[in-house]
Amino acid sequence: MAKDFTLSKSRFEAFSDGVFAIAITLLVLEFHLPAFESAPTRTDELHALAGIWPQYLVYFASFATIGIMWLNHHAQFRHLERITYGMVVASLALLLFVCLIPFATEVLAKFGINNVTVVYYGIVLLGCTLGYNLVYWQILAAHPQLPRRPLLWNVVGVSVYPLATIIAYFAPYAGIGLFALLAIFYMLPSNVAAVAFRPK
Amino acid sequence: MAKDFTLSKSRFEAFSDGVFAIAITLLVLEFHLPAFESAPTRTDELHALAGIWPQYLVYFASFATIGIMWLNHHAQFRHLERITYGMVVASLALLLFVCLIPFATEVLAKFGINNVTVVYYGIVLLGCTLGYNLVYWQILAAHPQLPRRPLLWNVVGVSVYPLATIIAYFAPYAGIGLFALLAIFYMLPSNVAAVAFRPK
Amino acid sequence: MAKDFTLSKSRFEAFSDGVFAIAITLLVLEFHLPAFESAPTRTDELHALAGIWPQYLVYFASFATIGIMWLNHHAQFRHLERITYGMVVASLALLLFVCLIPFATEVLAKFGINNVTVVYYGIVLLGCTLGYNLVYWQILAAHPQLPRRPLLWNVVGVSVYPLATIIAYFAPYAGIGLFALLAIFYMLPSNVAAVAFRPK
Amino acid sequence: MAKDFTLSKSRFEAFSDGVFAIAITLLVLEFHLPAFESAPTRTDELHALAGIWPQYLVYFASFATIGIMWLNHHAQFRHLERITYGMVVASLALLLFVCLIPFATEVLAKFGINNVTVVYYGIVLLGCTLGYNLVYWQILAAHPQLPRRPLLWNVVGVSVYPLATIIAYFAPYAGIGLFALLAIFYMLPSNVAAVAFRPK
Repeated sequence: MAKDFTLSKSRFEAFSDGVFAIAITLLVLEFHLPAFESAPTRTDELHALAGIWPQYLVYFASFATIGIMWLNHHAQFRHLERITYGMVVASLALLLFVCLIPFATEVLAKFGINNVTVVYYGIVLLGCTLGYNLVYWQILAAHPQLPRRPLLWNVVGVSVYPLATIIAYFAPYAGIGLFALLAIFYMLPSNVAAVAFRPK
Repeated sequence: MAKDFTLSKSRFEAFSDGVFAIAITLLVLEFHLPAFESAPTRTDELHALAGIWPQYLVYFASFATIGIMWLNHHAQFRHLERITYGMVVASLALLLFVCLIPFATEVLAKFGINNVTVVYYGIVLLGCTLGYNLVYWQILAAHPQLPRRPLLWNVVGVSVYPLATIIAYFAPYAGIGLFALLAIFYMLPSNVAAVAFRPK
Repeated sequence: MAKDFTLSKSRFEAFSDGVFAIAITLLVLEFHLPAFESAPTRTDELHALAGIWPQYLVYFASFATIGIMWLNHHAQFRHLERITYGMVVASLALLLFVCLIPFATEVLAKFGINNVTVVYYGIVLLGCTLGYNLVYWQILAAHPQLPRRPLLWNVVGVSVYPLATIIAYFAPYAGIGLFALLAIFYMLPSNVAAVAFRPK
Repeated sequence: MAKDFTLSKSRFEAFSDGVFAIAITLLVLEFHLPAFESAPTRTDELHALAGIWPQYLVYFASFATIGIMWLNHHAQFRHLERITYGMVVASLALLLFVCLIPFATEVLAKFGINNVTVVYYGIVLLGCTLGYNLVYWQILAAHPQLPRRPLLWNVVGVSVYPLATIIAYFAPYAGIGLFALLAIFYMLPSNVAAVAFRPK
């Protein structure tokens, strides 16, 4: 009875879209204006707004990351008709790490780019990748007719993210470069299309 | 006239999904980085990020709790066709306590695990359980053809949550253990399926 | 051309539901734990959690208020088929005041119940009432066949809210009592049903 | 294969509506009550609530701005049947700037109206305008049968926003006046109707 219990696709997507939308919008709360002891001059204000330029970069990177993750989550479920219990639990595991991205972003913005903060960011991204792979396995489990082989994005995710995180420990900027390349890879239309399951 | 006033299931679900999604995403705001008087060294930063490990545990627990609650709310309404006024009011009462979970989580993260904080967390979970039971009664009230008997999850909820909260007063860790067992129980696919009403 | 421009009911509702859901969930951010100079004892913690009891009352009142407003917004649009430009603008004016409720709640929680804070809360509620009336007129404007007369809820809203706000200036607790009576009035199933337009 | 990959319109809209709804509701977090050293008198409280009147204006302006942007985003996609990859990426670029509005609002509220803060606000609005134009081009790219010419709103957006931002540097209040005129222009029903694509 529990075995054939399926969930409403629309509610599952509404909840997931809500979490992605909130996580991406919360990124803006990371921006902090400095406290001034006396009334700031316009030069102070200009410096305050321009001086947080690394935060703009980090904001952009995290916004793009969550946007791409939403796109891939969307692609994974686009053509499915049944949402199983296993897919929902795997998806919650994924969202657990997606929701940590705003915090990892704040860490990066506050402490700056160094081997502690970039490795931390990498671990959160690694958690997201494992989440996507978990969702993948659950979708395969529900569709025995689908071919059972890892795709390029699975292999890239579980191999390059750990590698980039290790590299980030020794060379933070190289790690960030690899994360950016991975983001571009996952954003390519051909990859988004490849992520999509077509049971029929 | 008011008697046969029914509500739009899609708007009711969109609103509820929104509240669950926001509550689960707000959990991340609980993480606070310590303020450093001088520029932190990388060791300081590492200690700051690793030193909040109890917050990660609490984050995980609350994330799982809200996720499971969303799953059960979803199951309760999955097969219903009419949403009555009573169901909406009962559901708002439930959401009132769901929205308190991020605060109870912050209390636990800030003050640590002790008999005050775990009892507080337990009272919020107890409120959620009573909310689910209220929704249950309202669904029964709208479907006279459904069998009118408490199910396992009703009995477990209204008996074990108060018990676990009392135990938490004397032994906080035992209380947490019981809350975890309850979470696992409510997450079991067989229980989620049992929560679902099938009017036809 | 602009005249017969209609909007998608589903997107209008999704956006409105989102705003209501976020406003109701943001209420929890109002709770603030006191800062302790040294590590708090459990008695300190208990006092901290129990000492904010007025905030629980205010939280409950605002949660109920936003919940009831969502319910009435839902009822107003339940049976409409066309969403006009005027309805959307009127609805945005309403949401402008709904979004202020969390701030008015924080004011009440922080400064306590007195003639300044309750009048402030009353002004925000008055803005919401005017918003609902604006929506009402716009719905009437789009449906010439509907009877063109103020209903009980219109009259009560635009007369009792200003009255209660004035009373709150001289007797804050009496003002709060009237706000509570108004909330109960708007929550009555018969009123929610009366708010609903049935063009056909 | 990637070429004809289309996305679910409902999920795309749910995600976008979520981001707009959260950004508009986060505006309320900008209001900050001053910290009092001793218990504030009622006069202190009144001054605190009335003294933030510039913040109310800024709140109103940003609320209207985001509301109008949501309305135009809605109009752009109202009659489309297929959502392409390019539209989604362009829309994410737009939302990147929409999400910055609450921060630009806080800057304006905190530092007051001067040439630094109004120019900053103008740059964010300019980013939004470019985002809408990007979406426009992507929609045209997917519908070769649509006439390929810039409309009034395109021309106004990409010319008057930079102009207003430059003027704001020399005369902040004149810049704000122009932003207000632009907001009114984009809010006109005739413009909202003009923004809408009608592929058939």
